[in-house]
Amino acid sequence: MITIKPHVSEKIEHDVDKKELLARLKLFLSNKLILTEIEQIKPFECDALPAYHCIPWIVVLPETLGQLQNILRLCYRLGVPIVARGAGTGLSGGAVPLDNGVLISLTKFNQVIEVDVENRFARVQPGVRNLAISQAVAQYGLYYAPDPSSQIACSIGGNVAENSGGVHCLKYGLTTHNILRLKMLTMEGELVIIGSHGLDSPGYDLLALLTGSEGMLGIIVEITVKLLPLPEAAQVILAAFDNVEKAGGAVAEIIASGLVPAGLEMMDKAIIKAAEDFVHAGYPVNVEAILLCELDGTTEQVEEELIQASDIFLLQGAVEIKVAQSEQERLKMWAGRKAAFPAVGRISPDYYCMDGTIPRRYLAKVLKQIAQLSEHYGLAVANVFHAGDGNLHPLILYNANIEGELEKAELFGGDILKLSVEVGGTITGEHGVGVEKINYMCFQFSAGELLLFHALKAAFDSKGLLNPGKAVPTLHRCAEFGAMHVHGGILSFPELDRF
Amino acid sequence: MITIKPHVSEKIEHDVDKKELLARLKLFLSNKLILTEIEQIKPFECDALPAYHCIPWIVVLPETLGQLQNILRLCYRLGVPIVARGAGTGLSGGAVPLDNGVLISLTKFNQVIEVDVENRFARVQPGVRNLAISQAVAQYGLYYAPDPSSQIACSIGGNVAENSGGVHCLKYGLTTHNILRLKMLTMEGELVIIGSHGLDSPGYDLLALLTGSEGMLGIIVEITVKLLPLPEAAQVILAAFDNVEKAGGAVAEIIASGLVPAGLEMMDKAIIKAAEDFVHAGYPVNVEAILLCELDGTTEQVEEELIQASDIFLLQGAVEIKVAQSEQERLKMWAGRKAAFPAVGRISPDYYCMDGTIPRRYLAKVLKQIAQLSEHYGLAVANVFHAGDGNLHPLILYNANIEGELEKAELFGGDILKLSVEVGGTITGEHGVGVEKINYMCFQFSAGELLLFHALKAAFDSKGLLNPGKAVPTLHRCAEFGAMHVHGGILSFPELDRF
Repeated sequence: MITIKPHVSEKIEHDVDKKELLARLKLFLSNKLILTEIEQIKPFECDALPAYHCIPWIVVLPETLGQLQNILRLCYRLGVPIVARGAGTGLSGGAVPLDNGVLISLTKFNQVIEVDVENRFARVQPGVRNLAISQAVAQYGLYYAPDPSSQIACSIGGNVAENSGGVHCLKYGLTTHNILRLKMLTMEGELVIIGSHGLDSPGYDLLALLTGSEGMLGIIVEITVKLLPLPEAAQVILAAFDNVEKAGGAVAEIIASGLVPAGLEMMDKAIIKAAEDFVHAGYPVNVEAILLCELDGTTEQVEEELIQASDIFLLQGAVEIKVAQSEQERLKMWAGRKAAFPAVGRISPDYYCMDGTIPRRYLAKVLKQIAQLSEHYGLAVANVFHAGDGNLHPLILYNANIEGELEKAELFGGDILKLSVEVGGTITGEHGVGVEKINYMCFQFSAGELLLFHALKAAFDSKGLLNPGKAVPTLHRCAEFGAMHVHGGILSFPELDRF
Repeated sequence: MITIKPHVSEKIEHDVDKKELLARLKLFLSNKLILTEIEQIKPFECDALPAYHCIPWIVVLPETLGQLQNILRLCYRLGVPIVARGAGTGLSGGAVPLDNGVLISLTKFNQVIEVDVENRFARVQPGVRNLAISQAVAQYGLYYAPDPSSQIACSIGGNVAENSGGVHCLKYGLTTHNILRLKMLTMEGELVIIGSHGLDSPGYDLLALLTGSEGMLGIIVEITVKLLPLPEAAQVILAAFDNVEKAGGAVAEIIASGLVPAGLEMMDKAIIKAAEDFVHAGYPVNVEAILLCELDGTTEQVEEELIQASDIFLLQGAVEIKVAQSEQERLKMWAGRKAAFPAVGRISPDYYCMDGTIPRRYLAKVLKQIAQLSEHYGLAVANVFHAGDGNLHPLILYNANIEGELEKAELFGGDILKLSVEVGGTITGEHGVGVEKINYMCFQFSAGELLLFHALKAAFDSKGLLNPGKAVPTLHRCAEFGAMHVHGGILSFPELDRF
């Protein structure tokens, strides 16, 4: 387990007395909204990436906008750093607390404020669960499209902070493509509105900037999400291949054909077996890879596209094709995919899930290199991913109880991220950078780009109090990590000549 | 005509000698790339909103990235402001030059650098014309979706700067939804990469921030645009109504039904008559409003949706419905819509085109109030707009040769923008703020939001040299305009209680 210490250059020091701060918080927060006892605050020490954790200094659970404003104003005045937290389902340690900061849990902001059926949007508070939005609007034949695997539990505020994706993002986009407006509190406690319910907004477009900013720029207090009409029909087709490269080629062909599947997922042999053993989804187990391709739309459209997709899969050498014969079978096919992570949990004591995203044409090449790295490190890897998006989720299998295996898994993961950047991709598709991938930001971005990020952060958060030590590394960290060389005060990148 | 003078608080003063600056520019730019003679620089005095104009100090036409970097570095060092210009087709005066600044024309950056058919994107330079992209990729069955009416002439760099829209943006989104990556030079001349060719990018998402930033944050030197497969079929249906409110209601019903037309346009009686007289599109002329609704997709889908849309129009009281019987007739129907602005030019010496965007449900209400304003000011108005998006383009008809009519038209336009904000909309949908709407930004945004914009601008452009006096007003301007009150150093808005 790694107890998180921000890089020395990222640490926000202060000499505020904890008792004094608590006394001031109690002026506007009742006792039950402030947690300090170890048994109360221990559950907040990590998110869903438990390898990184830290016992928070103070946890608060504000119930109203006014309380939240007061907390921020107080912390701003005193120079106390804060971390905002949703449901804690994040996979990159973005909500890991600070040992000298206030953790603000937003779970009590859990109201659906308005559903506008005619204009097809809903205004919700950040603590509303992702799936609860779709449930609240199902009566109008509508739903909210982005569907992270954790959608039963994860909160929409967390989704915005991490720009979450999901199986259906190939067709319907990430969180950033499915929100219209945010209300946000700045670190000074000022309420600002970002975006609009109209087509476009004048002024600088801060909506995408805030989305995926990992709690570094402000605290989001209201989200207007777009709603879509539930598709009339949905059907899934399973295609099995006797080699991974052929499956990768089929993905490219599907996209090139002009089809836009609602989801296009790939699983390799290790995942297929683990998932089949776990949920008995009916997957063929003696193949090297399967693709799950979902098509949705009108009944006629789905029927036509099913034929088109089957033809492509057969041409690309699929050894088996299977179309769900009933809604029940369709859901079973997806159940296997959605249970892939817990299924792997049954075959390995620990796993480390990566999130690199690459141009689709390099799928086969990158998968081959991951297999080589697997041999090199002596750690097995299972691949399940959003193939249509080129968003890889290699699961590196390890045992944390074996000395050195976690460190090996981290190095292996780092190599996968570097590989992703080298082929023109990125170190994260939908899970965020958090603490987990912060060092690899030094490979992804130039010193000039990181400096621009810092200037931008300072424009929102002049004292650097919002979620310090996450997502955007200091140049000192990069220099120390060895990814950025400093010669006579001038920074340069040894690894990438990107222009 | 209005000669543009930036508000005193927005003016960038310097005492650089023009001859000296020219001498330095000539060190790396050949004579033909520097324009200073009045007959050479006069064509650059305005964009497509000629009411605002200013003779530029110096015009440069760099041909290479190195030249552009040198220009920026030089101006940065000397503190000389700059304005970047594409094709000059903008409708909000965003490219109006400065009398003490350098106008950088990007027309020589006109190469399509790469077309990646498999991953469906193209890398292009900013001076490439919008339509030229679709023409370059038509051989692969692909196209670039956003289609401003000026697409024959306007450049993709300008489209990015203004976040341009077009008829097809209802289904396919604005420019911001159709680009993947930008290469940009900062005011210091540093090259940065924003976005990626993958699904998502770690770090702050600056792609949307840069898109629509009206040349205030950097100079874009390369754009990666998404390409879409050409739809198999497209069909247009015309529905005529004997009152505008019914037409507005039909728009709401179409959207609520779940149909996503490729375009959904509305024209009122004045426009119908002007367009019909001009291009003989075959519009019925004795009705109050017509809707043009385009459906695209597979042949089966289009056929099915045509029936669905017709049913809705009839239920909503359409007095006539017409489906194009041939591709030629379809194009003729659109020709009328696309020629609406020049058609109005034939019936009025001058017109002033607004761009307010409102929630669709207020269409009828806002149109009624615009009619009342028209009576109040004694100026006729013709309405043509992207109804599906709620993006209004009222054309205020006036005669600039009649003393005071331009000023009346501007007041009338301002009232329309205020009205748009009051019903929850925005002052611009796709044309940008530029100089034209800068005062109305004071209604749209709070002092806190404008201060955030200024901090953000400073993060990119510490000396404020990039396109000063455009898009984002200073608080001094707002105070003077009367939209923001300053009491004892604290700013407040009298007009809107937005929370």
